[in-house]
Amino acid sequence: MKEIRIFVPASVANVSCGFDVLGFCLAPVGDEMVIRKSSEPGIRITKIEGQDLPMEVDNNVAGVAAKALLEAYETAVGFEIEIYKHIKPGSGIGSSAASAAGAVYGINKLLGEPFDPKSLIRFAMQGEKLASGSPHADNVAPVLLGGFTLVRCSDGPDVIKLPVPDELVATVVHPKIELKTAHARSVLKQQISLKDAISQWGNLAGLVSGLYENDYDRISRCLVDKIVEPSRALLIPAFSELKEAAAEVGALGCGISGSGPSVYALSRGMTTAEEVAQKFSEVLSGIDISFETHISPINTVGIRILEEK
Amino acid sequence: MKEIRIFVPASVANVSCGFDVLGFCLAPVGDEMVIRKSSEPGIRITKIEGQDLPMEVDNNVAGVAAKALLEAYETAVGFEIEIYKHIKPGSGIGSSAASAAGAVYGINKLLGEPFDPKSLIRFAMQGEKLASGSPHADNVAPVLLGGFTLVRCSDGPDVIKLPVPDELVATVVHPKIELKTAHARSVLKQQISLKDAISQWGNLAGLVSGLYENDYDRISRCLVDKIVEPSRALLIPAFSELKEAAAEVGALGCGISGSGPSVYALSRGMTTAEEVAQKFSEVLSGIDISFETHISPINTVGIRILEEK
Repeated sequence: MKEIRIFVPASVANVSCGFDVLGFCLAPVGDEMVIRKSSEPGIRITKIEGQDLPMEVDNNVAGVAAKALLEAYETAVGFEIEIYKHIKPGSGIGSSAASAAGAVYGINKLLGEPFDPKSLIRFAMQGEKLASGSPHADNVAPVLLGGFTLVRCSDGPDVIKLPVPDELVATVVHPKIELKTAHARSVLKQQISLKDAISQWGNLAGLVSGLYENDYDRISRCLVDKIVEPSRALLIPAFSELKEAAAEVGALGCGISGSGPSVYALSRGMTTAEEVAQKFSEVLSGIDISFETHISPINTVGIRILEEK
Repeated sequence: MKEIRIFVPASVANVSCGFDVLGFCLAPVGDEMVIRKSSEPGIRITKIEGQDLPMEVDNNVAGVAAKALLEAYETAVGFEIEIYKHIKPGSGIGSSAASAAGAVYGINKLLGEPFDPKSLIRFAMQGEKLASGSPHADNVAPVLLGGFTLVRCSDGPDVIKLPVPDELVATVVHPKIELKTAHARSVLKQQISLKDAISQWGNLAGLVSGLYENDYDRISRCLVDKIVEPSRALLIPAFSELKEAAAEVGALGCGISGSGPSVYALSRGMTTAEEVAQKFSEVLSGIDISFETHISPINTVGIRILEEK
């Protein structure tokens, strides 16, 4: 194989009580990437469409992730990367993660898969480090493994793939405001009360058990975040109205996607997820903010191969 | 049925990263209780052996729990309670929980089981409230349901029974020092860092997934407590030596049981659990502290009926 064209999905991290550890993978929204072998060693970004992003390898998340992989695997072959960007950078649904994960996934395939998917995570994390300053895995893990993933610690990440109840469907709305990750981070309280923390870890543990047992009611009861959401909600237009609207039509839960401004909801079944999307649209139309909505079952596979040459 | 004699097991709460939410039930160590119908309405404690505990219903955890049940279920029948105490109060393995849980379990049986086991928890919690000032469920839940239990919040508790990997065996050592719960509580930091909290909820989520998947290595990696253990460890003689000794012989993890002074370890298989017990004995003999050790598979059933009349 000389060339591979892939679909690289968006993802939702910081899933309510799973702040900084839990993420899941979306299906219909994502980038396309082409990775091509080259006789010239090293990495080159040869094309970027859809967004104005740096072509220099060391300033591009895909480039940095790809280089991290090649540092761990000696080869005389080089690689060209084309990126067809559909995920909006800064939207909070893992735009940089998609680029970083796609690059290492494609190169690994073209090299004959010397690494298993979990081992690719640490390379992709280097792209995230470039994007946000810290090498977190909570978006690249669901993109590379599919489904729901739990990342125990982001230094030497211990990544656990969790089961996905069949009927779970996500609705994501991206209110088109600019929200810098640095700003979303600056509002985080670095000290929290033990009481709130206990409630949070009880909820996350309950959520994990709900995923294993297909217990939608339990999932719903546990999709709560008393720690980060109250601070960050203030940065997102009409967040409490969006959340109430989702609850009104029966969503299991609703929270901030990544560090925002996108807002996700999880529902049981497509019908409810569509009603949530409708409600989200009404809320944001009402305050004259432009937005984009996505409805998606949980993508249990992750990256998809579109073409091999 | 006029009378029931039951075995009411000890339990371990605050299981490392599961502080305040996760507990499990022990098998060989526990109290015996006899609950007997009486034509005189109300509750009476008619006998307590093994410990010097209050006979007055309102000052006895079993009495208070039993009264809470009868407030929710009108009956002309009364009940006599006999308690044969083998669990040492203040040892940190759920002595008060056993008395409270046993009382409501026995009365519920004699009434023809108007309540399911989960519904009994809130009555037993009233006994815990008398014992420690707060109506927590993290010991009574594993006693009443068996196995590992997760208690999401202790007000209106949402209790989840978790699966138990077959080969999991607990070793518990009770160093016989007096450690007041109030003292163990006073050393808790009420504010904690977000970073430590994230690591804790990642570990608890990982531990829960490890229980579902019989993944002993993952269970081991996740049995960590960066928040409460560092403060409370100082109150327990030779805690770090006990913990190191357990690790040396291959225990999966080791931590404080309840609010101490008992220390628990979890191992894969009886042989390792016995080696841990041996090591615990050596450590505490070396510093001339008297102690008692227990080795126990996880009790997945909870309370056991010994005799019905």
